[in-house]
Amino acid sequence: MDGHIGRVSGPARVAEPGEGIGLEELALAARNHGLPLEAMRDDVTPPGLHYVLTHYDIPAAAAEGWELTVNGLVRTPLTLGTNALRSFPAVTHRVTMECAGNGRARLSPRPVSQPWLVEAVGTADWTGVPLRVLLAEAGPAADAVEAVFTGADHGIERGVEQDYQRSLPLAVATGDDPDVLVAYEMNGCPLPPQHGYPLRLVVPGWYGMAQVKWLRDIDVTATPFTGFQQAVAYRYRQSADEPGEAVTRIAPRALMIPPGFPDFMSRARVLRPGRVLLEGRAWSGRAPVTAVEVSTDDGRSWRAAEVDPPGEHAWAWRRWRTWWNAAPGRYVLSVRAGDAEGHVQPLTQPWNRGGFGNNAVQRIPVLCLPPD
Amino acid sequence: MDGHIGRVSGPARVAEPGEGIGLEELALAARNHGLPLEAMRDDVTPPGLHYVLTHYDIPAAAAEGWELTVNGLVRTPLTLGTNALRSFPAVTHRVTMECAGNGRARLSPRPVSQPWLVEAVGTADWTGVPLRVLLAEAGPAADAVEAVFTGADHGIERGVEQDYQRSLPLAVATGDDPDVLVAYEMNGCPLPPQHGYPLRLVVPGWYGMAQVKWLRDIDVTATPFTGFQQAVAYRYRQSADEPGEAVTRIAPRALMIPPGFPDFMSRARVLRPGRVLLEGRAWSGRAPVTAVEVSTDDGRSWRAAEVDPPGEHAWAWRRWRTWWNAAPGRYVLSVRAGDAEGHVQPLTQPWNRGGFGNNAVQRIPVLCLPPD
Repeated sequence: MDGHIGRVSGPARVAEPGEGIGLEELALAARNHGLPLEAMRDDVTPPGLHYVLTHYDIPAAAAEGWELTVNGLVRTPLTLGTNALRSFPAVTHRVTMECAGNGRARLSPRPVSQPWLVEAVGTADWTGVPLRVLLAEAGPAADAVEAVFTGADHGIERGVEQDYQRSLPLAVATGDDPDVLVAYEMNGCPLPPQHGYPLRLVVPGWYGMAQVKWLRDIDVTATPFTGFQQAVAYRYRQSADEPGEAVTRIAPRALMIPPGFPDFMSRARVLRPGRVLLEGRAWSGRAPVTAVEVSTDDGRSWRAAEVDPPGEHAWAWRRWRTWWNAAPGRYVLSVRAGDAEGHVQPLTQPWNRGGFGNNAVQRIPVLCLPPD
Repeated sequence: MDGHIGRVSGPARVAEPGEGIGLEELALAARNHGLPLEAMRDDVTPPGLHYVLTHYDIPAAAAEGWELTVNGLVRTPLTLGTNALRSFPAVTHRVTMECAGNGRARLSPRPVSQPWLVEAVGTADWTGVPLRVLLAEAGPAADAVEAVFTGADHGIERGVEQDYQRSLPLAVATGDDPDVLVAYEMNGCPLPPQHGYPLRLVVPGWYGMAQVKWLRDIDVTATPFTGFQQAVAYRYRQSADEPGEAVTRIAPRALMIPPGFPDFMSRARVLRPGRVLLEGRAWSGRAPVTAVEVSTDDGRSWRAAEVDPPGEHAWAWRRWRTWWNAAPGRYVLSVRAGDAEGHVQPLTQPWNRGGFGNNAVQRIPVLCLPPD
């Protein structure tokens, strides 16, 4: 690695106590964006409202001439254009994606990276070819253990120049519950540039780092992948020098559409007395959501919300709702989800150095005005 | 105004020296987003890459049942559904829009508001009905001076509860160079929710605050509008107690697509030695861009870039380009535009309290590595 790169690409760090968001974090926040929470009113999130995180630049990509290769420990290496991919039977899955760093900016001390608050989520209908179909076509060797996915996005991170790469265990890559997809459509249209045009991976239930965009190569390997995004980034760690645990599936979370209307600058909510519908979405990448509870007294007491049945979309968020009789005063509204494995959202977030897997309950300060 | 509102909706303020970006500014940055600068490679910006700023929430809006009223000092008040609007001859204009607060976060001291760095821009093809056609249909009275536009977005700002409202002088509203549009399509598709679905105003050459989204009423008036967004916000002021000057048209600006590839965290650019294409876009809402100059030595020397002719899109950005022979070392790249009225981008930004109309030249730190 060239020594000069260290001059623009420093090690990971944690903010000093009281250190405000810096211009570098802000530059990431200006490029990448979350879901405006009122957009949870729609089952499916349009591009531009769905959260997006791009590690490097959005590659200049054309569907014409794009080739996806399947290489490595396979009987028959494949080279597939987008038309060849479209000749396989198409499958569509509705999937809720969330960035592994969602909630990072509320941690203390704050890991310095993309400074998400709570909105790094979205749900879309992804259409493509099941990865297991492509891998069956290529025929992995008996001793293959992982598939490594390479995107066309190129950059530097902590001194390491790289194309974005992530792997999946072969059992996940070839699984059918859920299907992993090589997707070429989002919500019935070609992928938008920022969501991986022309091809991306969609791994239902996993955090966003697994959803490799601008996908151009799949390498079947005999050993676990030790590239930067697998072994250095995206690990649950307390200190910089421990190996940590891999970040994989999405922890349960519920979010509420902030009721009433906002103040521009504080985003604090204002409403008028009366019956108020509290509603939102809940999801988990680990096990089905089994309960959603709402608090109007900053987490001191909780009551059950009504949750839509899972329906046909097992890997998408589910709508929840409850009514609240708002009287004049100030409140903090919260919602929390629990899943079938017994995971429940924490009121205070256990800390980790990368700021991953946060699912502390949302807090929405609300002012209910006196009657008009 | 209810006294309680002051508890969630404070006055405008300027950050203390050294004060980092706060969580309220970050909450705005997480909702709203800029143009990833590499997206300047496209003439027309897709939704999700085009900058967006929403003052309050994105309203829940359906085209079915949506009504635009034209009221006030007119001979024939109008009530128009979206189908009625589509029955007028459609006009499409390619327009570059920019937020009036672009660049605010780099000011010192920093006005506390949406903390844009440099990316709050985008260009789209907007299709709709010229406003002058609708106003001719309604017939403004001889003593009418302004048209006031009301959106469906509702919130509070500095203690004032409001629907978003802005006005235009009647001469601008009825002008034909450029046409002001009541637009229902962006890039050939219905407006995305965040860009004003189902109807918005498009005022070529003006900053974003004039481009009223979720448009539901046009009121023709005998006196200039004194509402919040006209008389309180969006004024060039040095201190809080002066009336200030109205923010109107876009000052000239050129931006460069940052060359090479980025470091994830610093967004600093890295490239290898050799011939590098420097390119980007330039625009002005005041007068045609007449010159674009590039510097590779942090503004000490400048040379002319080649600029595309204006072509048929007078209100859209124009592509510029020049070549650079990069040798190993560190550089700061910049570009500046000048327009036919003699406005040229400043190297250091004159300050105003709202952080409006900034067009200081972009600075792109670049590291050119030694040869491989």
